[in-house]
Amino acid sequence: MNNWDFSIPFVRELYDALNEAGVEYMEIGYKNSPKLLKSDGAGPWRFLDDAFLKEVISKKRTKLSALVDIGRVDEDDILLREDSMLDLIRVACYIKDIDKALDLIQTFHDRGYETTLNIMALSHVMENDLHEAFRLIAASPVDVVYIVDSYGSLFPKDIEYLTDKFSSMLPNKQLGIHTHNNMQLAFANTITAINRGVTFLDTSVYGMGRAAGNCTTELVVSYLKKSNYKVRPILEMIEKHMIPLREQVEWGYIIPYMVTGLLNEHPRTAMALRNSADKDHYADFYDKLTSAETSFIK
Amino acid sequence: MNNWDFSIPFVRELYDALNEAGVEYMEIGYKNSPKLLKSDGAGPWRFLDDAFLKEVISKKRTKLSALVDIGRVDEDDILLREDSMLDLIRVACYIKDIDKALDLIQTFHDRGYETTLNIMALSHVMENDLHEAFRLIAASPVDVVYIVDSYGSLFPKDIEYLTDKFSSMLPNKQLGIHTHNNMQLAFANTITAINRGVTFLDTSVYGMGRAAGNCTTELVVSYLKKSNYKVRPILEMIEKHMIPLREQVEWGYIIPYMVTGLLNEHPRTAMALRNSADKDHYADFYDKLTSAETSFIK
Repeated sequence: MNNWDFSIPFVRELYDALNEAGVEYMEIGYKNSPKLLKSDGAGPWRFLDDAFLKEVISKKRTKLSALVDIGRVDEDDILLREDSMLDLIRVACYIKDIDKALDLIQTFHDRGYETTLNIMALSHVMENDLHEAFRLIAASPVDVVYIVDSYGSLFPKDIEYLTDKFSSMLPNKQLGIHTHNNMQLAFANTITAINRGVTFLDTSVYGMGRAAGNCTTELVVSYLKKSNYKVRPILEMIEKHMIPLREQVEWGYIIPYMVTGLLNEHPRTAMALRNSADKDHYADFYDKLTSAETSFIK
Repeated sequence: MNNWDFSIPFVRELYDALNEAGVEYMEIGYKNSPKLLKSDGAGPWRFLDDAFLKEVISKKRTKLSALVDIGRVDEDDILLREDSMLDLIRVACYIKDIDKALDLIQTFHDRGYETTLNIMALSHVMENDLHEAFRLIAASPVDVVYIVDSYGSLFPKDIEYLTDKFSSMLPNKQLGIHTHNNMQLAFANTITAINRGVTFLDTSVYGMGRAAGNCTTELVVSYLKKSNYKVRPILEMIEKHMIPLREQVEWGYIIPYMVTGLLNEHPRTAMALRNSADKDHYADFYDKLTSAETSFIK
């Protein structure tokens, strides 16, 4: 929501706060290649550079992870893990690109990284395609497979259904959960996943994230009964950095995002609305999205 | 949060929107007596007057309810239902006043009203006291008994536990659920209650309510699969009235309310903080509430 434009002090303090809080991993940005993607003036966290990272972060207990997209990562940019600040590489893909994602994962695995596979837009995937993908995933070296509620459209019962399916079909993999808060269910869906044995829990401090944002770090750290988790450093980060940031940049439970979540759609139409003069014309937005002859290009 | 200071057009439009949306009841205010409670400049919805209500509202399908507190209601103010705009009277009490609450409920029942009993602060009630109360409630004419998460401290598993307990011990009563959103669980807890057969679902448009606010009407109306529910009138109400109101008056997921929810405490300390110059000093607030030698008077 801020075009990856975080200051270096912000990122350093976030890393230190997460480390103090006992959070195991921090996703510090994208490892996509600026050669393969227009930069659009994005901050340095969109195209992580290893030398830059070494300057910025003094590594402590909290591990670092980076996200890559299919077709936007240059494999030559990925050092051996022993030469890199990164510990974990997360590969995000749509179901149609599962083979490409698993090729990347094999490469990253061979270079020593922990890996995760994040199949986006699960709520739009037909189950026969998912079963085919599971066969490939089970045979791959990926460590963690994510259940991703890209559109914030899933209810706790859906999370139960999906975790049971993923667990039974991928018994040798750890599972992760990535939620969005369009319907104020990001934390509840994360709790549901925890209760079913999911161990990788994506959160963001104060819920900052695209559109409605994500499950909040402060709630999950408080919820988990583990003595090394501490919420206080997260609260300090929120009061010092997230409150001022939220005044500049918008995310959270905002009605157009609730509507796209409800309709199981990508929030792009809602994000466009929020950047227009009609930002609070909710009823009209709802009419357009629910009309068969909608003027939106989806 | 606005000292009951809603304008007459606001309340009329809210009533019409709820009626259009298919919502069965609207709580239009308190029926406490101004003789028994300082008014502190409160708007007319704190001390509902029947003649005033008749002027303001053209009754349609949506029924009207009012809340009363033990010791703050004058029974002589309560007309026979056939002479009143009200259909339902809700009695809120702490567990120690259950006998007084049931006396009031008997009176309102005899005057023809539907009645609900709302035991507040359930998360602070010891189970032996609750069992004693159930015995009295079961023998009373009350129609609906509420599970009230006053402090926004309950998780879905707690709602499961309580609904199972209430259902088994009060098999002849309908159940209601009243949630607060301190931990972003108001909607999830309401869904949990729905799944266990709870039929009276308290919501507020855009979640407006004390401190972190409540489960939102727009989410519940959208969630329920019942063809006469419509979310569009609620979206219109939000864009026209709730967005401007939210700029004047604060409620929602705000960190001090998250902290009191987490700690299973009344939000009064957090409300005081939000009215002070220290409103965003979250870490300090957390320290005070979690210290044994706290400077707060609880």
